[in-house]
Amino acid sequence: MQTIVRIAASRLIVALLAAAAWMPTALAAADDPLPSWNDGPNKQAIVEFVRVTTTEDSPQFVPVEERIATFDNDGTLWVEQPLYTQVVFAAQRVKALEPSHPQWRTTEPFRSLLDKGEAALADFSIQDFATIVAETHRGLSVKSFHSEVRAWLKTARHPRFKRPYTELIYQPMLELMQYLRANGYRTYIVTGGGQEFVRAFAQKVYGVPPEQVVGSAAGTRFKYAKDGRPELVKLPKALLIDDGPGKPEGINLMIGRRPVAVFGNSTGDRQMLEWTAAREGARLMMLVHHDDGEREYDYGPDSKVGPFPNSLMDEARRDGWHVISMKRDWRRIFAFEQ
Amino acid sequence: MQTIVRIAASRLIVALLAAAAWMPTALAAADDPLPSWNDGPNKQAIVEFVRVTTTEDSPQFVPVEERIATFDNDGTLWVEQPLYTQVVFAAQRVKALEPSHPQWRTTEPFRSLLDKGEAALADFSIQDFATIVAETHRGLSVKSFHSEVRAWLKTARHPRFKRPYTELIYQPMLELMQYLRANGYRTYIVTGGGQEFVRAFAQKVYGVPPEQVVGSAAGTRFKYAKDGRPELVKLPKALLIDDGPGKPEGINLMIGRRPVAVFGNSTGDRQMLEWTAAREGARLMMLVHHDDGEREYDYGPDSKVGPFPNSLMDEARRDGWHVISMKRDWRRIFAFEQ
Repeated sequence: MQTIVRIAASRLIVALLAAAAWMPTALAAADDPLPSWNDGPNKQAIVEFVRVTTTEDSPQFVPVEERIATFDNDGTLWVEQPLYTQVVFAAQRVKALEPSHPQWRTTEPFRSLLDKGEAALADFSIQDFATIVAETHRGLSVKSFHSEVRAWLKTARHPRFKRPYTELIYQPMLELMQYLRANGYRTYIVTGGGQEFVRAFAQKVYGVPPEQVVGSAAGTRFKYAKDGRPELVKLPKALLIDDGPGKPEGINLMIGRRPVAVFGNSTGDRQMLEWTAAREGARLMMLVHHDDGEREYDYGPDSKVGPFPNSLMDEARRDGWHVISMKRDWRRIFAFEQ
Repeated sequence: MQTIVRIAASRLIVALLAAAAWMPTALAAADDPLPSWNDGPNKQAIVEFVRVTTTEDSPQFVPVEERIATFDNDGTLWVEQPLYTQVVFAAQRVKALEPSHPQWRTTEPFRSLLDKGEAALADFSIQDFATIVAETHRGLSVKSFHSEVRAWLKTARHPRFKRPYTELIYQPMLELMQYLRANGYRTYIVTGGGQEFVRAFAQKVYGVPPEQVVGSAAGTRFKYAKDGRPELVKLPKALLIDDGPGKPEGINLMIGRRPVAVFGNSTGDRQMLEWTAAREGARLMMLVHHDDGEREYDYGPDSKVGPFPNSLMDEARRDGWHVISMKRDWRRIFAFEQ
């Protein structure tokens, strides 16, 4: 009986293998952890990186507690054009809060914003942005701030795509995060944007919990509310600027480990990539290159001062960082595409 | 046959129960997750807290991602008398670094320390301590700093116990951390001491990974070493003072969630306990009271200004925080006791 069973089993296997050869691509894709990525060197690099770092007898094996992957947010996980979402949020709050802040009518940069609307933002300096973000967030408890952000994200619409900002996340990057997590990686967001702003939606939108969001942070102050309950209130003062060299600094402060895989899209991510590249053993450095004006935006590296200048492209080429072409590498950019 | 089996089974159960009544205490203790704790209300409170927060149909159930427990370090997890260990480390570094810092011979507080040795520390102000910590750590890369701390911990000995400081951790608290982790809690250290100082030994000594150590932190600067490799160098400037109100502020910055269980021993932990106490749903607040001068130290709450003044004891009594008596609650304080 044993022998008969074995023969039957091996015949079944042969039959299955023959059937598999005829399987339509759609069925094969069901096993693909990165279905929104086109086949090519970048997709291969990701799959190979995961394989070598999670195979126990591989010389590049990384113990599970060290599997840290960090992702920039604006331009790497979601659309950052024509303006950072948080800047739009702050600008719209200036308008909403105007009645209780009459002094803004005569103080820059608030006056321009109130006079010209969002068109004024085109002329804003980094300092102007910092001022409106700080002043419109000031005095809110962290809890109320999260509620305000969530309420705003429900109604705000992107000017070009006419959809909620939280739908403008890159489906290939979401798949990548999920794939890494399924392989024991912890996925952190390391953003130049506000840490609490991103925490307000990161769990729901990216599956990233608050303790895995590192960002630029205002100080907070512990105080007692009128009912005697303690609360944490946002201060209009930056504690961390998590951008450029501030990214490895923030990673050290908040994680205390060097990432093994790192994903960015601009000069603000340069030092974070360098920090990971200098790690011993396996590591993966990737930059998203926005070269698809039709489906998303096309900016850099032609510009010398843009977010992706030639100098960054040169460094990527020289040091073996992977440059993801949105146009070629991504079969689908947004989940809402069919 | 069914009936016979049932009768046999119930007879077996009766027999086992009878045997259990005669079981020696030693055998029962093998199942005890907290063998260094004496039975009593505090041990009961811990076990009951874990039961209700991890039983799915309990009204006080806490989902696993929210199971955060925070522990103060000095005086809560290890001995803080007669001096904080990090202060001893910094003082001994002043001596070691003296040859390359001739200006210290004429600058306070370095001069007193070099003249009188550790006896000088008794007259130091908080600012003096901050100065020697900042100046002796300055310019070190985070990596070298960890190596220095680890090397020092291997040879340094506590003046009274004549043992390495890392052996002066409280065995009951270690068991408590392990018990909480076994029940899905993540155990964080939230220390007024230096974050990198504690990270240097927390994994090995407490089983707490670097990303779960929140502490007072100097800023760091990302720079390129002579060989071109990037490094992070400690600055002599505090970024976070993680003490008192700074503890809930630090917890919000680094974790972004409110703890469910919290353990401290001094006024520096007051706001962290209040922050947790104000949480909705289950929570556990505990203070270690040093009342055992024979086996460890006896300080407070008799002192008005000590680490555990009467005002803290009053707040604990009024708000249902648990006060752990080292004398009564801990059967064994250190692992090296027989």
